[in-house]
Parts: sequence; C-alpha cells; structure tokens
Amino acid sequence: MSSLYKHLRVHQVFGANTDVGKTILTTALARTSARKKFPVFYLKPVSTGAVEDADDHHVVRFGRNSSNLIRSECLYRYDDPVSPHLAAIRKVSESGSTPTDSTLISAVANKIREYASKSPKPGHVYIETAGGVHSPVLSGTTQADCYRPLFLPTILVGDSKLGGISSTISSYESLLLRGYIVDTVVMFRDEYYRNWEYLSEYFKARGIHLSAVDPPPARNSNATEDRASTEEYYASLVASEEESSISRVIDYLDARHAVRHKELESMPQRSIDSIWWPFVQHGTVKGEQDVTVIDSAFGDFFSVYKQPKNTSSSSLLSPEFDGSASWWTQALGHANPTLTMAAARASGRYGHVMFPQATHLPALRLAERLIQKGPGKGWASRAFFSDNGSTGMEVAIKMALRAWSLRNGADLTKENKKKLGILGLKGSYHGDTIGAMDATEDGVYTCEWHDSKGYWFDPPTVGFQDGQLVISVPSSLSTSDTPHVSPAKSLGWVYDVGERLHTPLARAYTMHIRRVLDNLEKNGENKLAALVIEPLVMGAGGMIFVDPLFQRVLIDVVRGRRSTSSSQWSGLPIIFDEVFTGLQRIGVESAGPVLGVNPDISVHAKILTGGLIPLSITLASKSIFDAFWGDQKAVALLHGHSYTAHPIGCEVANETLAQIEKLTESDDWKASKAVWAEDDGQQGKAWSVWDPQFIKQVSKLPSVKEAMALGTVLAINFKDSSAGYTSFFAQNLLKPLKEVTGNAGELSLAPGGANYGINYRTLGNVGYFMTSLNTKSSIIRSIEDKIWKTISA
Amino acid sequence: MSSLYKHLRVHQVFGANTDVGKTILTTALARTSARKKFPVFYLKPVSTGAVEDADDHHVVRFGRNSSNLIRSECLYRYDDPVSPHLAAIRKVSESGSTPTDSTLISAVANKIREYASKSPKPGHVYIETAGGVHSPVLSGTTQADCYRPLFLPTILVGDSKLGGISSTISSYESLLLRGYIVDTVVMFRDEYYRNWEYLSEYFKARGIHLSAVDPPPARNSNATEDRASTEEYYASLVASEEESSISRVIDYLDARHAVRHKELESMPQRSIDSIWWPFVQHGTVKGEQDVTVIDSAFGDFFSVYKQPKNTSSSSLLSPEFDGSASWWTQALGHANPTLTMAAARASGRYGHVMFPQATHLPALRLAERLIQKGPGKGWASRAFFSDNGSTGMEVAIKMALRAWSLRNGADLTKENKKKLGILGLKGSYHGDTIGAMDATEDGVYTCEWHDSKGYWFDPPTVGFQDGQLVISVPSSLSTSDTPHVSPAKSLGWVYDVGERLHTPLARAYTMHIRRVLDNLEKNGENKLAALVIEPLVMGAGGMIFVDPLFQRVLIDVVRGRRSTSSSQWSGLPIIFDEVFTGLQRIGVESAGPVLGVNPDISVHAKILTGGLIPLSITLASKSIFDAFWGDQKAVALLHGHSYTAHPIGCEVANETLAQIEKLTESDDWKASKAVWAEDDGQQGKAWSVWDPQFIKQVSKLPSVKEAMALGTVLAINFKDSSAGYTSFFAQNLLKPLKEVTGNAGELSLAPGGANYGINYRTLGNVGYFMTSLNTKSSIIRSIEDKIWKTISA
Repeated sequence: MSSLYKHLRVHQVFGANTDVGKTILTTALARTSARKKFPVFYLKPVSTGAVEDADDHHVVRFGRNSSNLIRSECLYRYDDPVSPHLAAIRKVSESGSTPTDSTLISAVANKIREYASKSPKPGHVYIETAGGVHSPVLSGTTQADCYRPLFLPTILVGDSKLGGISSTISSYESLLLRGYIVDTVVMFRDEYYRNWEYLSEYFKARGIHLSAVDPPPARNSNATEDRASTEEYYASLVASEEESSISRVIDYLDARHAVRHKELESMPQRSIDSIWWPFVQHGTVKGEQDVTVIDSAFGDFFSVYKQPKNTSSSSLLSPEFDGSASWWTQALGHANPTLTMAAARASGRYGHVMFPQATHLPALRLAERLIQKGPGKGWASRAFFSDNGSTGMEVAIKMALRAWSLRNGADLTKENKKKLGILGLKGSYHGDTIGAMDATEDGVYTCEWHDSKGYWFDPPTVGFQDGQLVISVPSSLSTSDTPHVSPAKSLGWVYDVGERLHTPLARAYTMHIRRVLDNLEKNGENKLAALVIEPLVMGAGGMIFVDPLFQRVLIDVVRGRRSTSSSQWSGLPIIFDEVFTGLQRIGVESAGPVLGVNPDISVHAKILTGGLIPLSITLASKSIFDAFWGDQKAVALLHGHSYTAHPIGCEVANETLAQIEKLTESDDWKASKAVWAEDDGQQGKAWSVWDPQFIKQVSKLPSVKEAMALGTVLAINFKDSSAGYTSFFAQNLLKPLKEVTGNAGELSLAPGGANYGINYRTLGNVGYFMTSLNTKSSIIRSIEDKIWKTISA
Repeated sequence: MSSLYKHLRVHQVFGANTDVGKTILTTALARTSARKKFPVFYLKPVSTGAVEDADDHHVVRFGRNSSNLIRSECLYRYDDPVSPHLAAIRKVSESGSTPTDSTLISAVANKIREYASKSPKPGHVYIETAGGVHSPVLSGTTQADCYRPLFLPTILVGDSKLGGISSTISSYESLLLRGYIVDTVVMFRDEYYRNWEYLSEYFKARGIHLSAVDPPPARNSNATEDRASTEEYYASLVASEEESSISRVIDYLDARHAVRHKELESMPQRSIDSIWWPFVQHGTVKGEQDVTVIDSAFGDFFSVYKQPKNTSSSSLLSPEFDGSASWWTQALGHANPTLTMAAARASGRYGHVMFPQATHLPALRLAERLIQKGPGKGWASRAFFSDNGSTGMEVAIKMALRAWSLRNGADLTKENKKKLGILGLKGSYHGDTIGAMDATEDGVYTCEWHDSKGYWFDPPTVGFQDGQLVISVPSSLSTSDTPHVSPAKSLGWVYDVGERLHTPLARAYTMHIRRVLDNLEKNGENKLAALVIEPLVMGAGGMIFVDPLFQRVLIDVVRGRRSTSSSQWSGLPIIFDEVFTGLQRIGVESAGPVLGVNPDISVHAKILTGGLIPLSITLASKSIFDAFWGDQKAVALLHGHSYTAHPIGCEVANETLAQIEKLTESDDWKASKAVWAEDDGQQGKAWSVWDPQFIKQVSKLPSVKEAMALGTVLAINFKDSSAGYTSFFAQNLLKPLKEVTGNAGELSLAPGGANYGINYRTLGNVGYFMTSLNTKSSIIRSIEDKIWKTISA
C-alpha cells in the first residue's frame, strides 16, 4: 500500500514514451539531490539491459563527486530491448522466474521501507519505470496498473519529439485515470518542435508545473570525449540555479511533499470542524485520533493516514481492510480501472441527459438487463430510476399505495389513505427518508415527523449458536410443538424453502400469520396496502438472518390462493427491498429463486453501481405499472430526480453486472461453495465466502451469542446486557482490529506487503464484516485470523 | 454535431502516435473499400506536407485501378513537419489564415454532408487525423477534443514499435475519456516487438477487435522499384480475404455500422417497452416519434436520432439544444472534459469510501469551500452530504424539527410532534420524497401518504407584462393602497431589497404577515417549526418569480427582533432550498446577499456537480448543529446514505465550483450584465443571459400573460383558460421548436454547423428555457430568435 514518509520524499518516474530521456533526467534529479546533500536512493524495479546500454552513452550515471550519497539498485533485469511481455517468456536474468505483480510491488515497498530506515535525515527516492506508462511489467500487467497499489507521487517525463504533445497528454490521462498524483512534468527543451512550450500552458491550466531542461549533447563517437561532454552536460544541469532548472524541480518536489504531509496532518481537525457525519454522534468524537483519514484506496484496502509516533522511519500511511465494503456498496474493489473507464466513457459521451420521455443506451441496456436476465426475470416489466435505495423504496411504496388504492380504496377518504399501512417484519429498515421510515416501526433512527404505518411481525431467525446451526422462534410463536430454539440440519437445508414448506414449522408459521392478520382486519381501522420485506437478511436492523421459510409463508398467506397463471398482483402488492441483499451480496442475485416466489416490485441499489456512485432502480410488474396508465398526467407516477438515470451511473452499473457474471464463475467462489456443500452434505442454495468452521468456532466463544454468514456478509452477535443499536459493547470489543498488526518479517496480504488493520462498523451489539465480491480467499482467511485473535483473546 | 448516414459509413482514423502507418493503413482501407465497389471518400482535414512526403514512399496512394471510385481531399495543408501549434503561426498554405475549431469541424461536417448527397448507394468515408490523438489542430485544441462534437466512430491505428503497447493503450484511453466509439484497432504485425499479440488480448477483453496486418516493405532507393514494391504490398493487403486482413476489417466496420443503425432504430420501441419514465404519463406516449433518442451530447446540444424520412442523404442524427439544461443541472455543457477528468481521477484514487467518522480530500475541500467562501459564508458551520436535493431537504427538515423541538417542544406529545408545521409559500416544491412533499401543500405531485403540514402564503410575484416590469400582489394582500398590479422601476430596483425595506409595500407585507401568523397562533393547534423557502424563484411550482421583498419581510417577521450579534437561530429555523436557484443558476451564487439575510440551514444540489451525477449538501449553522450534540448516539442525526460524500461527486463539485468562479468573470457574462445595467440605468443585483428587449417584446404578445428572466432562466407564462400543471397549452404552442430548422446555406451555431431544434419542457402553462452557465451569447440570441418566430407566428 501507499508509502509516505515524513523524511523520505519518494517519486516514481513515468515516461510519456520510450526514449524520452527518462533515465537521463532521473539521473540528473538524483545527482542534483545529492549536490544538495540529500541521501539519494535510485531504484529501477525492472530494467531492460539494451535500452540501458543505449542510454549509457549519456549516462555516466552518478558521477564521481556525488556518488557516495547515491545508492542505485535494480530488482529485475533482462537483456533484450523488447516488450516486457516477451521478456517474461524469455530469460529473466536475476531471479530466473517471472515475478508476480504482488511480488514486484512488495519488493519495491520493502526497498522504500529499507531506505526510510536508513535515512534518519531527509532523503530522496527516485523509482524509474521502464518504457511508457502502460508498458507491461513482466507479468503482463501494465505499469500504471501494476504500481497503482503503491500510490507513489509521480514525475512524468514528457516527450519532446514529433508527436510528443499527444503522447505526453495521453500518458498523463492514463495516470489520472488511476488517480496518480502527478507532481510535475519534466522534459527536454527541443527548440525545433517546442513541445514544452505548448505543454507548459496545457499543464499549467491543470495546476501542474512543467520544467523544460536543456537536451543532452549529440553522441560523440570518441568514447572519452563523449564521456566528458556528458559529464559536462550533467554538471550544467545540476549546478544551475536558474528558473526551470533541475535544481528548481528538486525544490518544487520537496515543497509538494511538505504540502501533502501538512495537508494530511491537518485533515482530522479540519474535518472535525466542518463536516457533519452521517450516523455519527459528534459528541463522542474525542479528537483527531477518532477520524479515519483516507488518502486513497485500492482493492479491498483503504490507505489511511496515521499520526506519526516516535519513529520517523515508519510510513505515515498504512493499509486498512475496508471491512464494511464501503458501507455495503463495494463489489469489485476500490479504484477498479474497469469501472473508472465505464464512468469516463459515459461522461465523455453524454455527461448527464434529461430522462423524461428520452432514452440513451446505458439506461436502456440496464433496464433490459435487470428485467430480462437480472432480478426482474420472469415477472418485472418496467424499470424506474432514482438516486439511492431510500428514494427507490419511496418510489416502490408510492407504486404499491396507488395500485392497492385503485383496486380497494374507492371508499377510502383522503384521511384514510394517509394511514394506509405496510405489513413487514420487526427490524426492517428501508432507508432514511421520512416516507421510507414510515414503513418501519418507531425506533432510534426516526425523526419528529416519523409516523409508523403498519404492522410488523417478530421474525424467526437463523444462525450458529455454540457451533450448531439453529432456528430461533420468537416467544410469540413458540409453543411446546414449536420450541424457541431448534437445531437445523444444515445451511443448505434451511434455504431449501420448497422442501421445508411441508414441515410442521411451516404449518405453525401459517397459522400464526393467519391469526395475526385476521385480528388486524377485525380490530384495525387502518388498512394494510403492501407487504414490504428485506429478503433473507435485514441489514441495518442489525444483520438479522430471517428464517426464509417464514418470509415465504408470509407471502403465500398474503397472496392467498392465487392462480399461478395470473399476472395480476394478489392480496397486497409485495415489495422486495433488495437494496442491500441483492446482486450477490449474500451469494444470490435475488432472493426470488430461494424463496420460490417473485415480488410485484423490487428495489436495487448499492452493489448495482459497483461501489462507485449512487443509483437505484425500482422494478415493477405490468400490473403495478398499469395502475398509473391513463390519459391524464395527474394519474402518472409524478416522481423523478434531476439526475434520473444519469448515464455515468447506468454505464457503471452495466459494467458491474457484466463483471459480476464472470465472478460468479470464479475459482474462489467455486471453492467457497464447495466448502459449504461439503459441510451441508450437498450443494445447497446458500453459501458464504466465510469459512463454516471459523463461524462455528466463533459461535462457541463465551462472549458470542450467535454467528452467521451468507455470501460476503459475516455477522457476530455479542452477548451484551445493554444490547441495542446504541450499545458500544461490540465497538469496544473489536477495537484492536483497527490496529495495524502482522507478524514481523512475514509479508501481509495487503498490496505492497504492509501490515494492516481492519476498518469495521458495528450495529449495536452486532459486529459485522463484509468483503467485495472479488476479495481473494487468502485475504478472507487472514481477516478471519485477525478476528479470531481479537475476540478469543 | 454527429453525422450518421444510413448509406454512408464514416470513420475517423486516429493514430496512437506519429509514424505508426496511419496513412498507409487508411490508404489500404480506402483501396479495399474501392475493390469491394464502394464509392470511397478520403478526407484529410489537416495535412502536414513533409510528413505526407515521408509516407509517400509507401503511398502510391490509390493506385490506377481503383482510383475512379476514390475521391481524396485535404482541407488545410501546411508544409513544415512540426507541431501544428507552431504551424498555426507559420504559413497556412491553403487558406492563408488559421481556422477556428468551429470552422474546421463545420468544414468536415459539410464535406460529409456533400459525400452523403453524392452517394446514393452505400459508400465509405475515411477521415484521417494528423499525428497522435492529442496532437493539436491549428487553433491549438487537441484533435481528440476538437473533433469530439462530430462524434464520429473511430479506428485507432496502433503503434507496432518499441513502447507502442503503452502509446496505443494511452491513446485509446484518451479517446474513451471523450466518449468516442472505438470500433476497431488496426496495426502492423511487427514480428520483433509483437505488440499486436499483447494488444489483441488487451482489446479483446474490452470488446474491441484488433487486426494486425503485414508491415510495408523496406524503402527501396530506386524510385521505380520502390513504387512497384509498394504497389505490390497494397495489392497483397487489398486482395487478401484471410482472417485479420484489411478486407475483414472493412466487413467488420460495415457490420458495426449496421448494428449501430439498427440499435438506434430499435431504441424508441424498446424504451417504450421497458422504461418507466419520471413525471411521464405513458398513456400519452403515442409511439416511437414521442421518444427522444439521445445518441450523445456535447456542449449545449443533444445529438438526437430522428427516424429517417424520404431522403437517404440526410443524417440520422441531428442537434437539439438542451433547453432545460438537462433538468436544471447543467452548468458547463455536456461531456465537458474537465469534469470527466475530475470524475476519473477521483474514481482512480478512491472509488467510493465510507464516510462516517472518515474523511477524504474531495469531501473536505468541498465542505470548506461551501462554508468558507461559498453560499455558507458568514453563517454556516457544517456540511452534511446526501444524494440529491430531495434527500438534502429531508435532512434540512430533520435538522429544523429537532432544533425547534429541543427549544420549544418540551411539552409536546409524540403525536403533536408528528404534526409540527412548515411555514412557506404557495407553489413551493422541495423534492419528491414523501417527507419533502409534506413540507408543501396538497397538489398534483403528491401520493396517498401525503400529509401537508404547515401554512403557505400566497406570494407577490415579479414579471414583465405587456412590456412593463410589474409586481403582482395576490388578492389576499391587495387593497386600495396596495394595488393588485403595480409597475416596478427596473429589475435592479426590484432586487435592491435593502432599499425597498422602507417602502409602503414593505409595511403592507409586514402587517399582512403578522396578521396571518397571529391568527395561526391563536387558532391553530399545530405549531410551526420551520420557515422553508426557495429564494427568489420557485422552480417546479411553475417558475414563480417571488417578490424578494416579501421573502425578506417574512424572514424578518419570523425572526423577530433578533440581536444581530446572536449566533442562535431565532423565531423559527430558516431553511433556504437553493437546490435549483443556487450556484449562479439565476445569476447569483446564493440569495442571501440579495435578500440581505442568511438562513440557518441551506440545501444545494443540481449545478453543484456540474450536471454530471447526483450529490447534495445541506449546510447548517452551529446553533442547528448543537441540537444534535451529546454523548448519546440516539441524539445524533441518524441519517446517511451508503454513497454519502462519494469522492467522484465531491471532486466533480470542486472542479465545477472552480470553473464557475472563472465563468462569472467571462466576457459573455459581463456583456449580459451591462445590457441589463443599461436597461436599469445602473448596475443592479439582478440580470440575465436573456435579452431584456426580447423579454419585453415577448411579454407584449397576445398569447403571453407574463415573461420573466433571471440568470440563465427564462419563463413565459401563457394565457390559458385551463391553466395548471396538467395543461398542455404551452406544450402544444411550443411544439414546432422541436423541429430542426435553419436557413438554407447558413451555418447554424450548433457544432458542425448543422441546423437544430430545441428540446424544451413546460410546467403547465409555463414554457421555460434554461442555458448552461457557459452557453455562448450567440447561441442564446439564436434561441431567442427561434422562440420568437414560434410564438409570435
């Protein structure tokens, strides 16, 4: 992960092309740093011998006078001046084998750590890449992608030749697409093409300083004279104090380094002073140490700024596993180039375009995909776009209220309609907007206007207790025949809902639900107008794994004896809030196939846009849509946000869904499914990336009441006398996870091999952990290990 | 604007660098098209003579046999093989002067139109660019940016030399950042570097086909032999039917062209079948012709697909002015590269990172900017992030309800709190979520659950009637001393609120407001807990320009005699809903300075993110923030969306605000302000990009009741007996604006010089038009002309 040391300024040098003078200019930078009495570390991770030779004419490298301050190294060297993808299959002279990306960047990160420990006083590091920004490293990954986890500030060496304006700008844009901080552009002052002239203005407009320096002398066939003229050339570059000289570049880079460091240092207090965080009691933020400063992120990890302790030789940035998958949205890891490209191409083609009665390809493809082969398959007819799960749920509720009222509400007054109720489960959560909140019970999340409308069942739940998977039935439901806690055969069995429909428990659920609904109808003055559930897992309510059989029976009872051929909704419009649970978050694309029933309306968000930007889609059946059909505008669904179906969100969603399709066939997923199948004795409908043995062991700990996992989600319910959302028990117990830990000398799994901590969130007495859909199983094993060590301690 | 003809396949050829064989491969493409009996048009818009010469060795161009089918042209030629930015200041051989971007692309677009009219049967056009993708054209703009308005499908010629993998990928990414459709990559099969091998896989993974073709023979010093070997080389490329040959490329491009055309053709019906549009009565969508198919967008214009009429020689795509600034969000034009880059660099650096108790630079900078030098200057202390204006308003309402209840609500029951009311103006609109809706009166937008909470004044308004600016006072307020309609001195005078505070009208407003509030307090059982206004203009309510004096007096009365030194809110928390009106949409950054008072809470969205993606910020004073301060989590503002403060939105917002700062100093804005100052007799606080004389003339038309403009917004209120939101009067009257019109032979102002229509929206009997903040005044004049011709007809 990103390395940033207070006393060690590190820059990575990228070239706009091969043969643009990268080696010459890096050498000049190193020599100038040395002249200024800084210890200098020059590192060339991958070196192509012949190109080096070609440059050697100008490179008498580090000269005699300053060399005692300069240490120069190369990690991997190969001899042919060919593209590295070919070199990889030829001889790699140093190691004999091709390093993986992970090995390569760990080696670079280790070198930087080593330099930092050797440089108690301020020093400079120059890491020179090979070829252009996208020249591949030995593994075949291009450099801009391969080195990205290190997130080193960069120097771009511009191209001074014909065509160099284009290659310099394009190279800059490729770096920018990966979030690199380009501190400066350096290039030769070629007086014929004068690219520096054009590019100075171009980069100035983008806040980037460009320095043009004198080009090297022409090659002299006399080796001694050549060496002398080169030495003279370097001497002139190094000695000069004039504007745009190398010396000024050094000062500028030092200043940028200082600014970056100062900015990071200032961020916690500035944030405390100006930001109002969501769901945070500012009164409990005691000081700067309580603020997580995220400098960048890559894959599963944040790169987090830590207040420096005693040693000046430790990095100010360290990796932190993003343990709540960036608030439940991450699917493909942070800064995934595929998603960045999707966002960029939609922005470049459309920006945003208004949507009423208009269409564009990204939105149309997304709508069709969700309806025809996504969670809407087999029942949905329409896609309505909004901005987040909460607004998507408000749309869903508006749809259901209208559909129900049109069929059943002819006699209702306006006041009666205001009180139409939602049927649901206790612990439900459908978003923070006031309307979505009204579809749930009173609770801690609600505001003055909150007005619970409806009835919520206390649901039976599923989880591991003391090593055994059990179904827990609430006291309202438990009888001598239906014990409060009963063991379940296996995870696969629990989620085989069709099979369980004929069990005594199903009959008990049915009778209980019928009885309650009958009483509500008899006693209640307010009508119920929709059934709203979060299928399988209620997230914000505390990661409650609901017994799927109960949800299925509830739907069956509500719908009554509907002819399966009918395309009309029946009983109540049924809404699946799949904002959190959908799109493989819990290992299934949609809960419909698990429950064996489809909704009339479903809502999708979070993973939908891969963890990048907000977008939500509400799917509806034709019979719901028809309730808004007419010739009067007032009858239409008069809801819409300005950025409805913004092309960037839609394009990112399309890309995300395509990537997820591939992921579901990945080896890691297959292996995880196999582990659970073995545990089940058969391949079931439920599985998790978390290991069943780990979960069972956790559930046996004295501090743990229950543990459970589905898909990427792991939840640990701690025993806590003062349980509830406002509990700090789990928060305090898990606190050590935030600490950066690792075994000395052992490379961790974070990019760059740094030790790492875990960034996690709790919901009252529940600690939960969530991965991306592509988190490597080796990382998950390591997280399990850290969790185990922390909570079993 | 984009040209797309059914029978004419047009491709633009970009090179990954200079000297990659662009001319040779384009020649081969042209010759192969000709061999297949297609008429071929080869166009080189800008040609550098000497480079041509260098290529001429291999380019015996179009040969003897096929040349009768090939027409080859060049628009601008210059002789030095230098960067075009230098050529521009040297001799331009053909025209003698440097063409502007607009002239250049209009010339290209005209050529394509000409080819289309000359090619009744299917033909091919190849437009060859010069140098690399970002090599500048004569004006200094880089090619990728300059040609973007034409949005031609592209062929990228890859670089087969050392470093060519990098330059090819970077060039591709630069095209992608501008939304270009890259149909295929073609390059030489260099057997030493084998770049094609690596790049084939790379592009395949991105859905792009790459073809590698044999490189040309080595140059022969004997001119005759050289010509013969070159001719032989071309013959071999052209004749071959084998896989990855040029012939296959032609077939592939034809297939892509057909797919693109078929896809556009299918989009209206597919959209009708799968999309549920916001605010649209689907029952009134009569058929494909009612769907606006947006193929791309650039600057102020959509590129819209039109069902082909009789002539095969007219483009299937035509420009449509985005007359509602993409639902009120546009600030800097569509597909603005600056905003795309901002989105890309944030995506590359962070993706999304969860926000509670965390911080990142884009969010922190945005919060500080809005508080310290933006609309929060002088009063705001905190920024709370949410996803759109509606959720931002829900947050604002939650803040106000809590702050008020804490001070005044000790005796209120839970039921009383549910009924706390909002004080506002009739015609208010604060977003579509149910809570935001409850802050407004009953109306057409509301759903079954809608429960109006509060009281709304009928506001006095401002507008031009029959050529005269007037203030219209509602009947509830008009007396013999306060006439229903009274003339106003000038626009500047109306918005000089401080000056008007001492007028009789101010006293009349004060007495009226006090009387109403006293009655409400005496009679009402429900308490008022917040004053919520859209300052100056109520948008969705029908573009109602409220007399600013009334809003100022209302605030003063509500606040009572507050000591100006107090930092506590007074009377009621005051919320400015500046979602639509803020950030220069109506010519001021915030209404505070115009009204002479600051709010306690304000909400910002739409323009905030430049018209790209959703993001909202609710600003609050310290005294509001303090109402949520404590040691209990339950006391905190428990609201938050998963994508809270997503870095992409924040970075785009920062970039937008920086750009807007520059725009407010632009010559176009200064000129518009000067025109209004002249009309006023002094520089006032209000102005518009729309011309005062035009507005006055429009207001004199018999069909027009009132016309008014502020900043970028023009509203025309039509006389209509069946007025109201559901009226179709304005819609029908303005319908001809959608038609593509222009004077024959005269270049229009749309990019590429094509004639264009206007995409507009109405709000009942109000037609409105909105520009971006950087729409050129020449375009605005042309829009005025079209509007005038349509409504005065």
